[in-house]
Amino acid sequence: MGVEILTIGTELLLGQSIDTNSAYIGEELAEAGIDVYWKTTVGDNEGRIGEALRLALARSEIVISTGGLGPTEDDLTCRVIAAVLARPLILDLTVLESIRRRFAERGLAMSKNNERQALIPDGATVLRNPRGTAPGFFVRLEGGRVLVAMPGVPSEMQPMLRDEVIPRLREWFGVKARIRSRILKTSGITESKLDELIGDLARSARNPTIALLAHAGEIHIRLTVKRDSEGEGERLLDDLEARLRERLGALVFGRNEERLEEVVGRLLLNAKQTIAVAESCTGGLVCHRLTNVPGSSAYFICGEVVYSNEAKESLAGVPRELIAQHGAVSQPVAHALASGIREAAGTDLALGITGIAGPGGATAEKPVGLTYIALASREKVTCREFRFLGDRETNKLLASQGALDMLRRHLLSGQDVTPT
Amino acid sequence: MGVEILTIGTELLLGQSIDTNSAYIGEELAEAGIDVYWKTTVGDNEGRIGEALRLALARSEIVISTGGLGPTEDDLTCRVIAAVLARPLILDLTVLESIRRRFAERGLAMSKNNERQALIPDGATVLRNPRGTAPGFFVRLEGGRVLVAMPGVPSEMQPMLRDEVIPRLREWFGVKARIRSRILKTSGITESKLDELIGDLARSARNPTIALLAHAGEIHIRLTVKRDSEGEGERLLDDLEARLRERLGALVFGRNEERLEEVVGRLLLNAKQTIAVAESCTGGLVCHRLTNVPGSSAYFICGEVVYSNEAKESLAGVPRELIAQHGAVSQPVAHALASGIREAAGTDLALGITGIAGPGGATAEKPVGLTYIALASREKVTCREFRFLGDRETNKLLASQGALDMLRRHLLSGQDVTPT
Repeated sequence: MGVEILTIGTELLLGQSIDTNSAYIGEELAEAGIDVYWKTTVGDNEGRIGEALRLALARSEIVISTGGLGPTEDDLTCRVIAAVLARPLILDLTVLESIRRRFAERGLAMSKNNERQALIPDGATVLRNPRGTAPGFFVRLEGGRVLVAMPGVPSEMQPMLRDEVIPRLREWFGVKARIRSRILKTSGITESKLDELIGDLARSARNPTIALLAHAGEIHIRLTVKRDSEGEGERLLDDLEARLRERLGALVFGRNEERLEEVVGRLLLNAKQTIAVAESCTGGLVCHRLTNVPGSSAYFICGEVVYSNEAKESLAGVPRELIAQHGAVSQPVAHALASGIREAAGTDLALGITGIAGPGGATAEKPVGLTYIALASREKVTCREFRFLGDRETNKLLASQGALDMLRRHLLSGQDVTPT
Repeated sequence: MGVEILTIGTELLLGQSIDTNSAYIGEELAEAGIDVYWKTTVGDNEGRIGEALRLALARSEIVISTGGLGPTEDDLTCRVIAAVLARPLILDLTVLESIRRRFAERGLAMSKNNERQALIPDGATVLRNPRGTAPGFFVRLEGGRVLVAMPGVPSEMQPMLRDEVIPRLREWFGVKARIRSRILKTSGITESKLDELIGDLARSARNPTIALLAHAGEIHIRLTVKRDSEGEGERLLDDLEARLRERLGALVFGRNEERLEEVVGRLLLNAKQTIAVAESCTGGLVCHRLTNVPGSSAYFICGEVVYSNEAKESLAGVPRELIAQHGAVSQPVAHALASGIREAAGTDLALGITGIAGPGGATAEKPVGLTYIALASREKVTCREFRFLGDRETNKLLASQGALDMLRRHLLSGQDVTPT
């Protein structure tokens, strides 16, 4: 059984949008043991959408399209599918009602053209879209073939594919084998250092295989296994993960989709500890990441973004002399930020961050990227110096990563893991 | 003259690599006045590469492939092209010599399989690859058609396309026209409402054309013009932009790469106004966005992330009775946050944001997504209610967008633009 992915949109041909949808679909299908053989992209052009659809239906058992389901004139997918299948478009009253409700909930008037989104080819089954107005749908055709149409907005398409489409495809086509991947995420170590620690395993492992993927502030280790039995695949992944963790210890902070801020949040919850943040160069990013985690209000009390020196003094209580003597970007100021906000907010822990994100602000002694991060507990304050080499936004991200990782390691053990 | 882009590589079908090459090629060709009608992706499979090539040569005048030119067994492009064109592969001695030199320069021994990269279909013209070992090539076919093959590594492909391929294509096909695009970005309006305001223009405009692209909290209007003279193209874009701005007024916040926080930053700089932020549900994101802009320390003074009710009282000076009477998510509390931090920080302006990002925290009267945003100036405080329908992170993003947009509109005119 072979899949053809058909992505529709002139912006994709013009290169104004990069087609991430087909990569996402390919990855999810691969994991589900379903092979993709073709990917085709056409613009918002009736003739070519039709030609591509006919060709795809002729050479592939499963055709999955994204895009062109919106409310405007250049959203042609539905109409072309109906024409290619020689079926009429039917107004789906349930879909119409749910679009109406969506507008009503937001206190907006539904404009006439939104009704178009409730027109579905006759015989198609609607795939609900809880995140947007355009529904998806699928049609089962003679010879066991399937045509699936989904919206092009990634946040709408992704849950639809994962929760509605893939389970049905696996059932209809009797797919048993699965390729399973697992990601182990590390922070506080370089790729070459990681290669020294586990390179021998990475080169010799066959099933599962091991690959290293570098991201800003994190290196991911991807393990991939292929097995009919899910249990056996999981067991092989478990074994290899155990061997890797034995070598890497606390350098591994999480698995798969887990984000550093989620891991930190769980550790804070378990330890019943609260946190406050006084941040300068990261400009609110540390608070933003901590509060991206649902339920974070249980441990995140408050933050201060003390950008000006006056704010560092008045909001965070950093003594003026300290800034005058050492400069705002200095270990004593990071220290004072952390201990100051911890006392003011009455939390168990606090982070203080000061640095030069760039591109401006550097001096002869203090280059762009120089950053001090302090972590205060009731017992002590520890501080580390970092030197990041990115642009402004990368330096902010790397500093937030350094801060969250210091917090994580403190919560894990109280003892330092050697920085590398 | 129509182009088909053919990207080759199993990693593209598996979603392990995102196909940025075809977006780059599409963008460069569009700007050079050459239309792309099809994009096809196949894996490293001899049969399907051949099938895709035959099909592309049948329906497109120009076929541009990337990938599959490397030295390993699964690099099949050359061999398949030779088979499809029924031409032998010839060892190109100049290419062989340059590969040898490349290895020698790096002090490496050339392995036997690198010689394969010097095999080129008979009659093809080599495109030099100064950045790598795999050369590209093109073949001119009967009927004026052209087949171009380039390596898949972006840093090798890009200069080859720009410097070698596009100038030839423009000459051979007598292309004079160039396509230029411009993006107008709007905020505070839905796609269907925008369609009501400018749909007639969008449907009737031919050159430039108009397309609407929806993003979280922003709708982009893309104008695309095709003209021989670059100056004339710009003039047509200027004219259409002026007509759109006449209808949309302050709904348009920026052009092309401009981000909302950059526009707001420039307006603050020009007005010599300073800003502070007290944010709850956005958790630091408004401060993070404002401080992503280089030089923002000139107008951004400080922020407070007042997550707990205690922090709202102690840090931002929100009276306890106010929270007890109206709840933390209420217009009076947003009002108090904005005016409180404005006075404490001594800034000209301040934002106060309180809401329910979700998934928890909703009550019978207050659903997830309910958000109040207040903007305080020296003269007055204005407050707006929003109801967002996204998940936690989307709601944070939409609320930050709402806050920055209120600030922008205030700075633009002091007068409210009708919310839509």
